[in-house]
Amino acid sequence: MHSKFDQHLDRNAANFAALSPLSFLERTASVYPEKLAIVHGSLRQDWGMTYARCRQLASSLQRAGIGKNDTVAVILPNTPPMVEAHFGVPMSGAVLNTLNTRLDPEALAFMLDHGEAKALIVDPEFAPVIAKALKLRTRSEPLLVIQVDDEVYGEAAAQVGTVSYEDFVAQGDASFAWELPEDEWDAIALNYTSGTTGNPKGVVYHHRGAATNAISNVLEWDMPKHSVYLWTLPMFHCNGWCFPWTVAARAGVNVCLRRVDAKAIFDAIRMHGVTHYCGAPIVQSLLVNASEELKQGLPAGVKAMVAGAAPPASMIEGMEALGFDLTHVYGLTETYGPATVCAQHEAWNALDIGERARLNARQGVRYHLQREVRVMDPETLLPVPWDGETMGEIMFRGNIAMKGYLKNPQATDDAFRGGWFHSGDLAVQYPDGYIQIKDRSKDIIISGGENISSIEVEDVLYRHPAVLAAAVVAKPDEKWGETPCAFLEIKAGAQVSEQDIIAHCKLHLAGFKVPRTVVFGELPKTSTGKIQKFELRKQVGSVQAVAM
Amino acid sequence: MHSKFDQHLDRNAANFAALSPLSFLERTASVYPEKLAIVHGSLRQDWGMTYARCRQLASSLQRAGIGKNDTVAVILPNTPPMVEAHFGVPMSGAVLNTLNTRLDPEALAFMLDHGEAKALIVDPEFAPVIAKALKLRTRSEPLLVIQVDDEVYGEAAAQVGTVSYEDFVAQGDASFAWELPEDEWDAIALNYTSGTTGNPKGVVYHHRGAATNAISNVLEWDMPKHSVYLWTLPMFHCNGWCFPWTVAARAGVNVCLRRVDAKAIFDAIRMHGVTHYCGAPIVQSLLVNASEELKQGLPAGVKAMVAGAAPPASMIEGMEALGFDLTHVYGLTETYGPATVCAQHEAWNALDIGERARLNARQGVRYHLQREVRVMDPETLLPVPWDGETMGEIMFRGNIAMKGYLKNPQATDDAFRGGWFHSGDLAVQYPDGYIQIKDRSKDIIISGGENISSIEVEDVLYRHPAVLAAAVVAKPDEKWGETPCAFLEIKAGAQVSEQDIIAHCKLHLAGFKVPRTVVFGELPKTSTGKIQKFELRKQVGSVQAVAM
Repeated sequence: MHSKFDQHLDRNAANFAALSPLSFLERTASVYPEKLAIVHGSLRQDWGMTYARCRQLASSLQRAGIGKNDTVAVILPNTPPMVEAHFGVPMSGAVLNTLNTRLDPEALAFMLDHGEAKALIVDPEFAPVIAKALKLRTRSEPLLVIQVDDEVYGEAAAQVGTVSYEDFVAQGDASFAWELPEDEWDAIALNYTSGTTGNPKGVVYHHRGAATNAISNVLEWDMPKHSVYLWTLPMFHCNGWCFPWTVAARAGVNVCLRRVDAKAIFDAIRMHGVTHYCGAPIVQSLLVNASEELKQGLPAGVKAMVAGAAPPASMIEGMEALGFDLTHVYGLTETYGPATVCAQHEAWNALDIGERARLNARQGVRYHLQREVRVMDPETLLPVPWDGETMGEIMFRGNIAMKGYLKNPQATDDAFRGGWFHSGDLAVQYPDGYIQIKDRSKDIIISGGENISSIEVEDVLYRHPAVLAAAVVAKPDEKWGETPCAFLEIKAGAQVSEQDIIAHCKLHLAGFKVPRTVVFGELPKTSTGKIQKFELRKQVGSVQAVAM
Repeated sequence: MHSKFDQHLDRNAANFAALSPLSFLERTASVYPEKLAIVHGSLRQDWGMTYARCRQLASSLQRAGIGKNDTVAVILPNTPPMVEAHFGVPMSGAVLNTLNTRLDPEALAFMLDHGEAKALIVDPEFAPVIAKALKLRTRSEPLLVIQVDDEVYGEAAAQVGTVSYEDFVAQGDASFAWELPEDEWDAIALNYTSGTTGNPKGVVYHHRGAATNAISNVLEWDMPKHSVYLWTLPMFHCNGWCFPWTVAARAGVNVCLRRVDAKAIFDAIRMHGVTHYCGAPIVQSLLVNASEELKQGLPAGVKAMVAGAAPPASMIEGMEALGFDLTHVYGLTETYGPATVCAQHEAWNALDIGERARLNARQGVRYHLQREVRVMDPETLLPVPWDGETMGEIMFRGNIAMKGYLKNPQATDDAFRGGWFHSGDLAVQYPDGYIQIKDRSKDIIISGGENISSIEVEDVLYRHPAVLAAAVVAKPDEKWGETPCAFLEIKAGAQVSEQDIIAHCKLHLAGFKVPRTVVFGELPKTSTGKIQKFELRKQVGSVQAVAM
């Protein structure tokens, strides 16, 4: 029996519309057409023009036979075409597949094949690698290749496109009547995971989730209208954690940056009045460790988000010294980027730096419009006690979780087992409800039957003043099964021995957790600054243990 | 045929949850349990306690046999039980029906009958009127009456409840396992329109719309976490335009206020560090026209929203003198309150006050997460030209529109005709896309075949320095059909004659638009400060025209 509150009270075209970040662009372009949208080199493009160009792009894609649920891949750095692709591609009905610019031709060819891309937009910098990838592609269906010209980059070393991006856009209709998806569950983006084991998985995002996470970004940062956002985080990574859509919702400014270095970042902050940016710890470290000369004349109160690893005390102190305000978030490709935030409390300000660092190192609480995060036993799905000690797996549910993995029903079912998204990260939950990652499931080191959290050991290593970056992995050991092996990158000019490191660890760790092996050198990192532990595991067999 | 982006990529418990403002309370209580949530008299209640009490209320309602799609009516001023009802009632599955506290027993009895209320929460101030309403009620089903005690009010003049609110809450379970609605389209609230013609209509809100408008409030105001919100706008009016939910989303403070007067408002602003409030023009006028003594020591930058009528220049100037920041919004009960906002532009700051007032008097552009607003020919549904002259009807579509009218399929169909919500307000659209109301459909005066916008005449009247409030209605006329009749409330101490007013109008209006009749006296207003033109229409036959 229907209730009175359900009778003749259905959804209709007047009272229901798909939630979609595409609406954000439409509104901003109509209310603030003259406001600055994109800065790149000498380019200054307003929201009216940006919307017109996105409609042109969508229109040209449709004329090229690309429409609903077709895939448009892009290999672009943080440039204006990348911002435009985040709107123009889904406005055509297609799904945006941003390719990681650091990948090799084989991986790119795999993604072009697996994602069934019908078009590909290529930056001049990546034309050579794409030329190779196109040869490795096995699909016989045609692929429309569109090549960008960018005077900030200069001349391309190869030509792979049959049309230039500017010509393609110019052919389109600036008043193209695009439509919102009928169903907000429609796909908007496809993002391949880094794939440290087996082939990468294609994470599918929907319009509802993209809109929801984009707004959550505003809520976390109290981000005002007309914020100035600097693109240090690659837009190919979880769609720049949804910030192209956030910036549109705020009628803000996208300050593009082809290449991340300390000088370019500080220059952009000063020149354009940057108010917000995101980045992996490596980006924040770059800034903190930059020369004093580079740091002169910065505006106060710039807000930074850091994800990918907990910010160590030295980073928090360094950011404070810069006058920047650091927020620690955590998430995965599958959760559109941030899905928890270490929400700060005023009372923390009174604590000493060690204690503040300890609190801020936690992954925290669910992101604003995410339904729930829990640490649970992965088998029973029962929550762990909030004691800061019992480990479980971080699991999410709510609107900020992917549709699933493309053409991979088994992986999708595994990921959503029991009605929760299984992150694969092991964590504890504190009495205040804040969670803290102890390790990836696969990064736990089991030594003499005892679990060792590689992150716990890394935290101690980071506290050593000479350490710039640290990674601890399991080294097979006949006696103990596994022992911890530390790989360390040392700060420029610092001097430190293996024995110094071991002595430091012994002060702060139980004996069985102290690394038996220490290796100095540059650490292999992903394009987003994450240390690639799988590379270190390949090396681990050939290194020698230190005499204890 | 399903696309690859729809295969085995369905909604499930891990990646989909109902959008609901109830989630806002849950998150805020878990992240900021110790943060202040409610101030009332000497009461200081934090978010942890507020959430516990809302769960208790929901639990007690369920134990009393109240559940999904049952109606719980409340007649409460802006007090803590009213804040709690916005969460506790829907957490039980029931629908919150906030009754207008200014209504007579007949109207209240109609609503209790029509809404089929199963429970009623009564403030001591309204026990006498409810005692009468209960006698007029025709339904035979039992009604659980819960009466609030409030030491800020004092002793109740009547006892209508069978249980006190505090006892009822205390009986509930503070860890009650409430659930989000399975469908975000489920009803969350029922709000009766003022019903100037015929019986009031019951506007049904859903969880999706409530969440969407609550977040739009944050976006418009750039409202930061822990904002301090003063309750000048009645919460019974469009659920306080959804601000009980907005304040919860921001982990802000609800500063309650039983009665709106200038001293109480200024005192609250100073004492509690109020940052935001909303109110009808009459509330803003109260503040602007208060004595200088009352205005001493106010914090700068308090943000105010005004709705219900365009703010005249004197109000804008007065607010600026206070150091307050005024935002003009427009909407209807059917659109959850604000559905447009006169979004301001930096460039306006350089204009003179007359020009700024002219721009700010416009109803503006669609609210943030609303899909669309248009001015259209009500018959053809074609948009009017954006010339600032051609009139049409304001129409909305998107998620910030009601489910429909309760048990009124005909009115629902009429309101949503052609896939747009018909506001009944007549407006023009300017070249910048901003809309401006010219009149309610029924308020247009037709004199000698010419349309006269009563709002245009009122705007001119408001510019006269002696005028505090003005309303213009049609007066039947043998020769012209209708002529404009002005009702005026004059500022304390001001002296002005009918002839002065007529002369002022002749300076600014075409002759046929000048009122032929001027009446001085207090204007009848609704509980939300809107002038009741239907009351004036009753009087209009007995007034004499002025010699022109």
